[in-house]
Amino acid sequence: MSAVLEGVPEKRLAVVTGRAYPELAQEVARCLGVDLFPTTAYDFANGEMYVRFAQPVRGEDVFVLQAHTDPINKWIMEQLIMIDALKRASARSITVVAPFFGYSRQDKKHQGREPITARLMFDLFRTAGADRIMTVDLHAAQEQGFFDGPVDHLTAMPVLLDYVRNSMPLENTTVVSPDAGRIKVSEQWAARLGNLPLAFIHKSRDITRPNHAEAHGIIGDVQGRDCVVVDDMIDTAGTICEAVRTLRNAGAKSVTLVATHGLLSGPAVERLSQCGAREIVLMDTVPVPESKRLPNMTVLSCAPLLAAGIRSVFESRSVTHLLEGLPADMRPRNIYA
Amino acid sequence: MSAVLEGVPEKRLAVVTGRAYPELAQEVARCLGVDLFPTTAYDFANGEMYVRFAQPVRGEDVFVLQAHTDPINKWIMEQLIMIDALKRASARSITVVAPFFGYSRQDKKHQGREPITARLMFDLFRTAGADRIMTVDLHAAQEQGFFDGPVDHLTAMPVLLDYVRNSMPLENTTVVSPDAGRIKVSEQWAARLGNLPLAFIHKSRDITRPNHAEAHGIIGDVQGRDCVVVDDMIDTAGTICEAVRTLRNAGAKSVTLVATHGLLSGPAVERLSQCGAREIVLMDTVPVPESKRLPNMTVLSCAPLLAAGIRSVFESRSVTHLLEGLPADMRPRNIYA
Amino acid sequence: MSAVLEGVPEKRLAVVTGRAYPELAQEVARCLGVDLFPTTAYDFANGEMYVRFAQPVRGEDVFVLQAHTDPINKWIMEQLIMIDALKRASARSITVVAPFFGYSRQDKKHQGREPITARLMFDLFRTAGADRIMTVDLHAAQEQGFFDGPVDHLTAMPVLLDYVRNSMPLENTTVVSPDAGRIKVSEQWAARLGNLPLAFIHKSRDITRPNHAEAHGIIGDVQGRDCVVVDDMIDTAGTICEAVRTLRNAGAKSVTLVATHGLLSGPAVERLSQCGAREIVLMDTVPVPESKRLPNMTVLSCAPLLAAGIRSVFESRSVTHLLEGLPADMRPRNIYA
Amino acid sequence: MSAVLEGVPEKRLAVVTGRAYPELAQEVARCLGVDLFPTTAYDFANGEMYVRFAQPVRGEDVFVLQAHTDPINKWIMEQLIMIDALKRASARSITVVAPFFGYSRQDKKHQGREPITARLMFDLFRTAGADRIMTVDLHAAQEQGFFDGPVDHLTAMPVLLDYVRNSMPLENTTVVSPDAGRIKVSEQWAARLGNLPLAFIHKSRDITRPNHAEAHGIIGDVQGRDCVVVDDMIDTAGTICEAVRTLRNAGAKSVTLVATHGLLSGPAVERLSQCGAREIVLMDTVPVPESKRLPNMTVLSCAPLLAAGIRSVFESRSVTHLLEGLPADMRPRNIYA
Amino acid sequence: MSAVLEGVPEKRLAVVTGRAYPELAQEVARCLGVDLFPTTAYDFANGEMYVRFAQPVRGEDVFVLQAHTDPINKWIMEQLIMIDALKRASARSITVVAPFFGYSRQDKKHQGREPITARLMFDLFRTAGADRIMTVDLHAAQEQGFFDGPVDHLTAMPVLLDYVRNSMPLENTTVVSPDAGRIKVSEQWAARLGNLPLAFIHKSRDITRPNHAEAHGIIGDVQGRDCVVVDDMIDTAGTICEAVRTLRNAGAKSVTLVATHGLLSGPAVERLSQCGAREIVLMDTVPVPESKRLPNMTVLSCAPLLAAGIRSVFESRSVTHLLEGLPADMRPRNIYA
Amino acid sequence: MSAVLEGVPEKRLAVVTGRAYPELAQEVARCLGVDLFPTTAYDFANGEMYVRFAQPVRGEDVFVLQAHTDPINKWIMEQLIMIDALKRASARSITVVAPFFGYSRQDKKHQGREPITARLMFDLFRTAGADRIMTVDLHAAQEQGFFDGPVDHLTAMPVLLDYVRNSMPLENTTVVSPDAGRIKVSEQWAARLGNLPLAFIHKSRDITRPNHAEAHGIIGDVQGRDCVVVDDMIDTAGTICEAVRTLRNAGAKSVTLVATHGLLSGPAVERLSQCGAREIVLMDTVPVPESKRLPNMTVLSCAPLLAAGIRSVFESRSVTHLLEGLPADMRPRNIYA
Repeated sequence: MSAVLEGVPEKRLAVVTGRAYPELAQEVARCLGVDLFPTTAYDFANGEMYVRFAQPVRGEDVFVLQAHTDPINKWIMEQLIMIDALKRASARSITVVAPFFGYSRQDKKHQGREPITARLMFDLFRTAGADRIMTVDLHAAQEQGFFDGPVDHLTAMPVLLDYVRNSMPLENTTVVSPDAGRIKVSEQWAARLGNLPLAFIHKSRDITRPNHAEAHGIIGDVQGRDCVVVDDMIDTAGTICEAVRTLRNAGAKSVTLVATHGLLSGPAVERLSQCGAREIVLMDTVPVPESKRLPNMTVLSCAPLLAAGIRSVFESRSVTHLLEGLPADMRPRNIYA
Repeated sequence: MSAVLEGVPEKRLAVVTGRAYPELAQEVARCLGVDLFPTTAYDFANGEMYVRFAQPVRGEDVFVLQAHTDPINKWIMEQLIMIDALKRASARSITVVAPFFGYSRQDKKHQGREPITARLMFDLFRTAGADRIMTVDLHAAQEQGFFDGPVDHLTAMPVLLDYVRNSMPLENTTVVSPDAGRIKVSEQWAARLGNLPLAFIHKSRDITRPNHAEAHGIIGDVQGRDCVVVDDMIDTAGTICEAVRTLRNAGAKSVTLVATHGLLSGPAVERLSQCGAREIVLMDTVPVPESKRLPNMTVLSCAPLLAAGIRSVFESRSVTHLLEGLPADMRPRNIYA
Repeated sequence: MSAVLEGVPEKRLAVVTGRAYPELAQEVARCLGVDLFPTTAYDFANGEMYVRFAQPVRGEDVFVLQAHTDPINKWIMEQLIMIDALKRASARSITVVAPFFGYSRQDKKHQGREPITARLMFDLFRTAGADRIMTVDLHAAQEQGFFDGPVDHLTAMPVLLDYVRNSMPLENTTVVSPDAGRIKVSEQWAARLGNLPLAFIHKSRDITRPNHAEAHGIIGDVQGRDCVVVDDMIDTAGTICEAVRTLRNAGAKSVTLVATHGLLSGPAVERLSQCGAREIVLMDTVPVPESKRLPNMTVLSCAPLLAAGIRSVFESRSVTHLLEGLPADMRPRNIYA
Repeated sequence: MSAVLEGVPEKRLAVVTGRAYPELAQEVARCLGVDLFPTTAYDFANGEMYVRFAQPVRGEDVFVLQAHTDPINKWIMEQLIMIDALKRASARSITVVAPFFGYSRQDKKHQGREPITARLMFDLFRTAGADRIMTVDLHAAQEQGFFDGPVDHLTAMPVLLDYVRNSMPLENTTVVSPDAGRIKVSEQWAARLGNLPLAFIHKSRDITRPNHAEAHGIIGDVQGRDCVVVDDMIDTAGTICEAVRTLRNAGAKSVTLVATHGLLSGPAVERLSQCGAREIVLMDTVPVPESKRLPNMTVLSCAPLLAAGIRSVFESRSVTHLLEGLPADMRPRNIYA
Repeated sequence: MSAVLEGVPEKRLAVVTGRAYPELAQEVARCLGVDLFPTTAYDFANGEMYVRFAQPVRGEDVFVLQAHTDPINKWIMEQLIMIDALKRASARSITVVAPFFGYSRQDKKHQGREPITARLMFDLFRTAGADRIMTVDLHAAQEQGFFDGPVDHLTAMPVLLDYVRNSMPLENTTVVSPDAGRIKVSEQWAARLGNLPLAFIHKSRDITRPNHAEAHGIIGDVQGRDCVVVDDMIDTAGTICEAVRTLRNAGAKSVTLVATHGLLSGPAVERLSQCGAREIVLMDTVPVPESKRLPNMTVLSCAPLLAAGIRSVFESRSVTHLLEGLPADMRPRNIYA
Repeated sequence: MSAVLEGVPEKRLAVVTGRAYPELAQEVARCLGVDLFPTTAYDFANGEMYVRFAQPVRGEDVFVLQAHTDPINKWIMEQLIMIDALKRASARSITVVAPFFGYSRQDKKHQGREPITARLMFDLFRTAGADRIMTVDLHAAQEQGFFDGPVDHLTAMPVLLDYVRNSMPLENTTVVSPDAGRIKVSEQWAARLGNLPLAFIHKSRDITRPNHAEAHGIIGDVQGRDCVVVDDMIDTAGTICEAVRTLRNAGAKSVTLVATHGLLSGPAVERLSQCGAREIVLMDTVPVPESKRLPNMTVLSCAPLLAAGIRSVFESRSVTHLLEGLPADMRPRNIYA
């Protein structure tokens, strides 16, 4: 006999999901060619949640997907509880998959005595037992630095670009930034769509003399153009709908709205339905239920993108190549089409 | 000039509250002779929360009160966010005050791949920046060991004892444990009420031969007695209402229910209204709204108890003496009376 | 040449042991088909200990077994020192195997200014470098939450059940809980032995009127029955021997004592020898030396159980199946037979 | 005798400095009415540094000032070593004072496999023993979230505003943002200087059609105006000198440059001397040696601002009020005047 | 009412002790003018220990004294348990006082797969909750770096020097180092005793040709001299007794042994009684029981030194001045005189 | 479909280097049969550094080599930044390779209020993300205990011994320790070179009577002998050059200097050129540039030693065997020959 027993190293992947948006996880698993990992989760009468995994997870690389949608605090807590259960059950590694990362807009103190809730969220995931975070289009790129470990920061841009390229003619198109702060991203869009012209909208108080009557809201030429307005998220849709109206008043031929995160909170759907946009293109990083669906709304599944990211992590390949776009056979479908 | 600048040491206390049950915090502050610390908190459209303190907290000993009531995950998250803001604003110490500690029943794994959510909650508070936890009647005393730091574990027993002593004659009273697992606590009750007789209810399957027809559900003599059933919490009230019926069927003259935490979830109020109890006595460690109020329900404020605990911590005195009961002038009132 | 050198992943297991009970480790290793890992350990003149491993442990999954027996503080410290040496020698993972976990009864504060020593022990193991804890029948299941990582909590129940099933006829048998607090475990025993009847012993003060003469110490029918009393540990044996006498006074035909941890401290052996039990069945989670052996004592080796647990961890399989019992060929022998 | 010995609580402040810019620390200490804490620091022959404090620091609140100037890595390391010595010498609290925070521009990953060096720096300070960070005008406000503790983030804006207000007539003045990304800060300047008009410079590729010849580099009216260009730092001065030329070509009457951090690296001084600016206004958050001084350069000491911040921390008052500006008698002088 | 409640800051010291050597703690307390803090500690039958403090410790600066004497692992564990209890009871600060620090000789790896047990001990104290370590004459000064926090490293040298100065004439005295490695310390002794001559003993193999017959064991002149041999500890006394014999063989008139830590393990007392030393001078950093006492042995109490160190820490003064010696009225007595 | 996706485990090694001494890393990579991992690193104008890896490192075991040479603080910082980038890019493990470990001489406090900078450096590496440290001949072996994890402590002794054995006849050779503190190491040299005689030099003040005129600087016989003086490092070379002169004055036939770390700071080269040594033998743990080269200086590459250490770690073999020396085909060359 020897003093050492030899074994066979293994490597296994599992995808688990919380209850916020299981359809997305289902689709991610399908893209990976695997079933969703069987999981039990329900609420107790006083609102506390219960979670359990029905099969062993020992030694597995587990990806825990949850959409940070309303009731957002509940779903984040459920994800934390799932991570705790996985840690105690000896998962080999635990990756948080949060396509939209909740609280990512609370990334700094504007005044004294405010929290930095985005940092707190990263810390809570770390404490529960997460080894890695995978997310799409954080509100500020600096937030990767909020985690003491690897963050796989995916971007929806290649997927959205691909859709725009294939859904409208581009010869008469101008890319529009909805405010001055997002010009750099719009530039990338214009370049990758074939060196299109660029415009941006500024709040009139920005760049005029005080008390000066005529506001000039748009820099660049939009008259008679097909405008594509790109933003990272549409929450209550106030700003972006005003942008559509401004562009239309300035003679734009059509206005298409494109954004990664379609939170569509409160008055968003009503505003969007009345703003006059030609089409609204979103990813489903949070669920977009039937009740929020508009006839001119396209919701692309982020499942192929997440699946490609997960596969890269599991196979120890870079996720950087995903910036170039997904292969043709992984092009996401409109989930309502 | 000297190489050292001298200053005057100070010590200041502030009580802040989340939005779950501000009336309780108001009452705690009143007991302490202080105003609630001015705080801003609201929800964004997508459900994310915002918190800010309106005055400096630098150098203060801050007690952050939140009731862990439904929507419990939201209110725990709000408390975490408040702690983060206090930590970043240089509070000298941060004490979580959670009169009912959420998830305290999920304190162990019953099966593989379950979380230990109670431990997770303690860890989340630690990560956010809490130095100390103050709570009342944890589900299991072992949970104090879930925190890597001091836990001030208060008990409502002296307050409840005091109420019972003053609200009913005791010469014909028997203390009843609703199940075998709580006999030890019931013993303490019986002893402190003046060496009263004790009974307990067992599930009939517990202690009989299989297939044996006659179930003996009650150990001890309850015939013609005024029974006081004591428990740590009333959640959906299923078990405890069955206990009342069993006692009444066995000839009890009256049944009084006493519990620290009145969660009163789901069917609880309906069940309680129909179970035939003489009186139901609860603390308001979670709010008991008007809608859940029954004519024979007494809800004692836990504010005097919490205030006494906070004052002891702030003045570096032991909280152990609170086991003896509060001074007469701090006796809590029925918040609905 | 490439910028990356490829290697062959490996997986190797080693079992090391402290000096408290090397025979148990020897037996565990034998069950696994491996030699004990060669280790040097001795005391210096002033009581400090020295430890060294004679072969490389780099990259290995090491299981560090120590029995927490008297002098318990010394043996725990030796285990901590072994873990430190393994960590510094680049072991891939370190699992504490403590069949009886020392100080597990000090799991909560009964009064102010007490330690929670069980939590402290888990923390000390973590600090020294342990990644995982494997133990058998913790005093309170909540203690799994004292470790910030996976705890493989084995139970001796299937092994003990198996022994009882094969060593006595069960048609006339009643399972007895030695106190009210352990009724739930006794219920499981009764069910798994074939739906046997159940009884339990209560301290007479529990459930009678004060000053009432007749004590009723036993709930359930034991007259003429073969009683099996189950407990988690036998330390000084005071309570359990009193239980035997109570049962015999009540007309029990025979009384068999079954417990996982046979600490057998101080007067235990003398008490057991005089109490009139038919048989005493224990596991050797701490050593039971010849000097403590009684003719009617059966000590089952816990080695097969530990070996099965270790193998499951090493092969990334669940340990939950061990609740069902060990395979027939791993049935442990009476170590004195 | 009693079991407790009583003592007198104290509170003492000390300011220590590294060798990067001791004149600034001297000035801070003077503003606080205290001597610099006596410190020994020198280099060994191989470049390692030695640090020691000549008086006890036990129980003191120590503020460790270092300018992150070239050789920046050496000076950061010296600050870390000083913190280690203070921690081991039982300082009560340790505050890093870094008026310009080194590496604050490396706050995110632009590509895969980049570090987030700003986060790393915060972590290194934490590890060495820092309890708190005090700094001025971080490159991105999100970086406050890189520290797991309080960050006192001061801003030079009130000081610079005050200087501009008192050094030039404002009736003909326009505030200019040197690029689109800093419009929000420029807005605040314009508002606080009395609702002045605003302009900004954009890179011509931003907002025009591709291949379109005429670039429009300036949004807003600058013809004949006294322009004040505000930025957070002047490093190699390439962009900002181009901005001056663009403004002058567009007919600006004069151009004044205002920035917090005057790094003035490499070609900066030569570029500034030739760009045609009327005046260059900087803070001395890093030293501006004689050799870099231009006749039209004003360097305001940041000592009064730091001293006010330190005093607020020591006296447990908010630093938020410093946003309103310093009292008149603390108005900093031009350190070269 | 205000939003903040003001209190009075306090500062209180308590000295608690384990059971290893309570007489020393008693003496330390006496020197400080305080009673020992009332503490309960005992063993359970299986060797586990119980600890509890009889009065509140909330807000106090507690010094936890334990002698690391045989059974050393038990006493270290008791000290850890006391620290845990203090941490959970809200002590303001916890200082380990270990006059002899156990395992301090295991400070490095001599071979692969050894532990660094001294570092482990510092880590265990940290984990249990210690804020600071106070000890006397560590085996290697580097061990201060094993603790991530302040270490108050006292030295017995001034006390021992003082005793030697007052107990023997020095005009004919030579200071002797028992081996080459301790020459530096011996030099300090010689200098502080008034520039006395120095000698040292080397193992003969050190500095001769191989196979060369005449060993030269002593460097320096000892013929007819009163030799004072200084060492940090006397454990089994083998080396030092050989040194005495070597010196006497070389014609020394008398030999006095001086050491800080008198472990006196195993054969030490017998060896010392036969080696021919004039006097053996020790501190009582571990207890020296009557049974180990020799007529020519002087054991000086380390209580005055510890008390002076504790007072300095409590009053936030440097302990460095203790290097100069204690005030005359704190000169320790021979505890056996 | 299954709920688990299986993958193929892999194991890959990469060697990356900072800019301090890339030639050494090149040579290490060559010895391992691999290319250096492609890395970008440069300075910004203000002295901040930029680092990026050009290929994915996900899942790789990365060894980060940096020579701690002047400007030593810069190069240590660069190594920290590289580690941060690797951690965030999901390297599987990160090993610091620091052949000379900077600040290793600052391993203790000589006086109050000094740092323990060596411990700080280990902590900084840990914080940045290092899992393991590999280094050669630390100044004190205790420093291994400064890291909370594995330290692979290599020694150059076998390589240097091998060189000496092959470069000079040994029959007339004496090994000389340059001071009393290094006798133990010199003994090992003498033994491993074939039981050679030993001598050592002492500072005359060490072992004589005060004011005694004749100093005896050398213990042992060196007259007419070929002396080999061994030390761990040559920094400013003051002590060692004085040793050479002392030996020559005492009639040594020749003096050869051997040391691991050739820091050669300040006046070192001039001193060495004039001291009369026959040969100076060094390893290149820091670079020895042409400008510091003397005709009688031999600089052996430490690359084969480092490569052997790295290979052992990667293949999970012990590094202890390296104490025996490298295989003949890995014998390092004189890098200047």
